[in-house]
Amino acid sequence: MATKNAESFSRLHVKEIALESEQAVNGELIKLQYSPPSPTIENHGVSNGVALKVPGWYVDIEDDWPGEAHLYKVEKVLFRGKSKYQDLFVFQSSGHGKVVVLNGDVQLTEKDEFAYQEMLTHLPLCSIPNPKKVLLIGGGDGGILREISRHASVEHIDICEIDTMVIDTVLPEIAVGYQDPRVNLHIGMFLKSAPQGDYDTVILDAFQCMGSEAEQLAGGSLLELVARALQPGGVMASQAQCLWHKEFSVADAIASCRRTFKGSVSYAWSPVPAYIGGMVGFMLCSTEGPAVDFKHPINPLNPKHYGVARGPPKFYNSEVHTAAFCLPSFAYEV
Amino acid sequence: MATKNAESFSRLHVKEIALESEQAVNGELIKLQYSPPSPTIENHGVSNGVALKVPGWYVDIEDDWPGEAHLYKVEKVLFRGKSKYQDLFVFQSSGHGKVVVLNGDVQLTEKDEFAYQEMLTHLPLCSIPNPKKVLLIGGGDGGILREISRHASVEHIDICEIDTMVIDTVLPEIAVGYQDPRVNLHIGMFLKSAPQGDYDTVILDAFQCMGSEAEQLAGGSLLELVARALQPGGVMASQAQCLWHKEFSVADAIASCRRTFKGSVSYAWSPVPAYIGGMVGFMLCSTEGPAVDFKHPINPLNPKHYGVARGPPKFYNSEVHTAAFCLPSFAYEV
Repeated sequence: MATKNAESFSRLHVKEIALESEQAVNGELIKLQYSPPSPTIENHGVSNGVALKVPGWYVDIEDDWPGEAHLYKVEKVLFRGKSKYQDLFVFQSSGHGKVVVLNGDVQLTEKDEFAYQEMLTHLPLCSIPNPKKVLLIGGGDGGILREISRHASVEHIDICEIDTMVIDTVLPEIAVGYQDPRVNLHIGMFLKSAPQGDYDTVILDAFQCMGSEAEQLAGGSLLELVARALQPGGVMASQAQCLWHKEFSVADAIASCRRTFKGSVSYAWSPVPAYIGGMVGFMLCSTEGPAVDFKHPINPLNPKHYGVARGPPKFYNSEVHTAAFCLPSFAYEV
Repeated sequence: MATKNAESFSRLHVKEIALESEQAVNGELIKLQYSPPSPTIENHGVSNGVALKVPGWYVDIEDDWPGEAHLYKVEKVLFRGKSKYQDLFVFQSSGHGKVVVLNGDVQLTEKDEFAYQEMLTHLPLCSIPNPKKVLLIGGGDGGILREISRHASVEHIDICEIDTMVIDTVLPEIAVGYQDPRVNLHIGMFLKSAPQGDYDTVILDAFQCMGSEAEQLAGGSLLELVARALQPGGVMASQAQCLWHKEFSVADAIASCRRTFKGSVSYAWSPVPAYIGGMVGFMLCSTEGPAVDFKHPINPLNPKHYGVARGPPKFYNSEVHTAAFCLPSFAYEV
C-alpha cells in the first residue's frame, strides 16, 4: 500500500487531464490500454441484448434500466484507460463539460457533479457537532475532498483508492480537493487495516463504481469494516439506489443497514440529471452512541468558508439538507 | 366552442387508446394523419443541426438542451395524429409503459406521470383553505382531473382544451379523471370568455405543450387572463422551466409573474425522470387578497379520499409539498 501526503500529491497530480497514456501510468497496479481519440464514439453498454451505437454520441445504457438510454454528444475523447480494477473513459461533451465514465457508468459530468459531491459530503458532516477525523473510501477524483475542505473543524482526512488511475486522470476544478493539507492518500486496501473506532465520519464513494468487486476486495463485508472504523455515534454516508429504480425498496435498504448500524439509519436523495432516473440516493447511518438526527442539521455549513474550493457551495444549504429526507409516498410502500 | 358534461363525456371517451385513426377523429378541428405502426421509429427532434435516428428507439432531443438525448425503446406504436394545433404520438415503451409525445416533447410516461400531475394539482389546492371552483387549462389527458377529484371541497371543475385530439386518445388510468361528475369540458378558447373573479384555483397545464401558439390564441397575455378569472387570493399553478436549464433564472421567472400576480409568487420543483433534466418546475402565484403561504400547506390532502382515482396519491404528501420549495443554492444566483 502506498501512502502520500497532500503536499507531494498536489504537486504531482493537480494538472490538466493527461492525453498520453504514459503520463497516466503510475504505480505497479496500473496497466493502461490507450486508444487514440476517434471521431466515432462507441457505446460502453448493452441492454436487453441490444447494443446501441450512435456515431458521435456517448450512449449511457444500463442493464438496471431496461428500455432507456441517455446520450451525450462527444466533442473530443480525452482519455481511455484500463487498470486491474477499473475502466476509465473521459470525454469533452457538447452540453455537460467533461464527462467521466467508470466501468461503463457515467460517474460525473462537470455540469452537475457538485450536487452529488456536496450532498454526499455535507449530509453526514453537518449532522454531527464537531467532525474531526474523516475517512473517504473512493472519491479519487477529489470532489468529495474539495467539499470536506469546507469544514474548518476537520483535522485529518484519509482517502483510500483502489489504484491511482482515477486520481491520475484529474479534472482541475474537482481535483482541487487534494490541495487541502489535511489530506492523506492511501492506495490499496486501506480500510482493512484502518484504525478502529477512530473516525467520526466515513464517506463511501466506491460502492457502485466497483460493484461486487468492492465487496470482494473488502473481504465480504464492507459495511462491517466501515462501522468498525467509526467512533460511537459516528456517521457513514454512502451512495444508494435511485427511488425510481423498479427493484429498489427504501424499507429494504434501511433494514439492511440496520443490521450493521445500531444508531440512526435514514435514506435521502438529490437530483443529479446525469444519472439515469435523474437523481441519486444516499444512505446515512450512525453507530450506537450519541443519537444522530440526520434530517435536521445541527452543524450548519458556513458558505463563506471555502477551504480549497474556489467558491461557495453551488447546491447544498440547510434547507435542501432537510428536504432531501422528504420522500414521495410511493417510497414508503413495502 | 363545444361544452360537454362529465356524464356523456365519460361514456364517450374513457376507453383503451384508439389504434385506428378513424376512431380518434372527433370534431371539426381534427385532421388526423395516421401512419401504421412500424418497427423503425424515427425521432421527432433535431438538435444542433444533428438529426438522430436510432432504429427501434424513440429519440427525445430538444433544442433547449443541446448535446443531450433520452432514448426510449419502442415496443409498439399506438397512435400518430395531427390536428390544427397539436401533433400527437403515443407508443408502448419497454420500460416506461405508454409514452405520450405532444408537439415533439415527451409529455408523460405511465411510469412517472403521477409525480407531475399530483404536484401541479395539490401544490395549489392544498395551499388554500377550502377550494370550491377550479379551472384547468389544458390537461386533456385527464390526469390533473383525476387529482382534483381527491378534493372533496371542490364543487365545480371547468377544463378547457384547444381541441379534442389529446382527449380522444386517452390512457385509461389517466383519463379516469373525466368520470368525476363535477367536470365540465370546454373545447376551444374558453378562457377569454370565462367568468371573471370566479375561480379560487386555476391550473395551467398548456403552456409548454402549445408554446407560443398558446399565447397567440389567448390574445397575447395568458397570465393576465388567468389572473382575471381568479378571485382575490385565488391561486394559479403552472408548469415552469427546470432548474438545470442553462438559461433559466428563478429570480427572473418570479419577477415576471409578479408583474401580473400581486399576491404571493413562488417557484417549486419536482423530480420527473421522463423530462430532460430529470425534474420539472412550477410557478405558484396568487392574486391580491388573503395571503397565501405556498410552502406550508394549510389544507392537507386526505390520502384516503380517492375521488375517481383508483388509489391513494403515489407521490404527493405534505412533506414533499414543503420540500418542493427548498431550492439548491445555485437557484438563488441572479
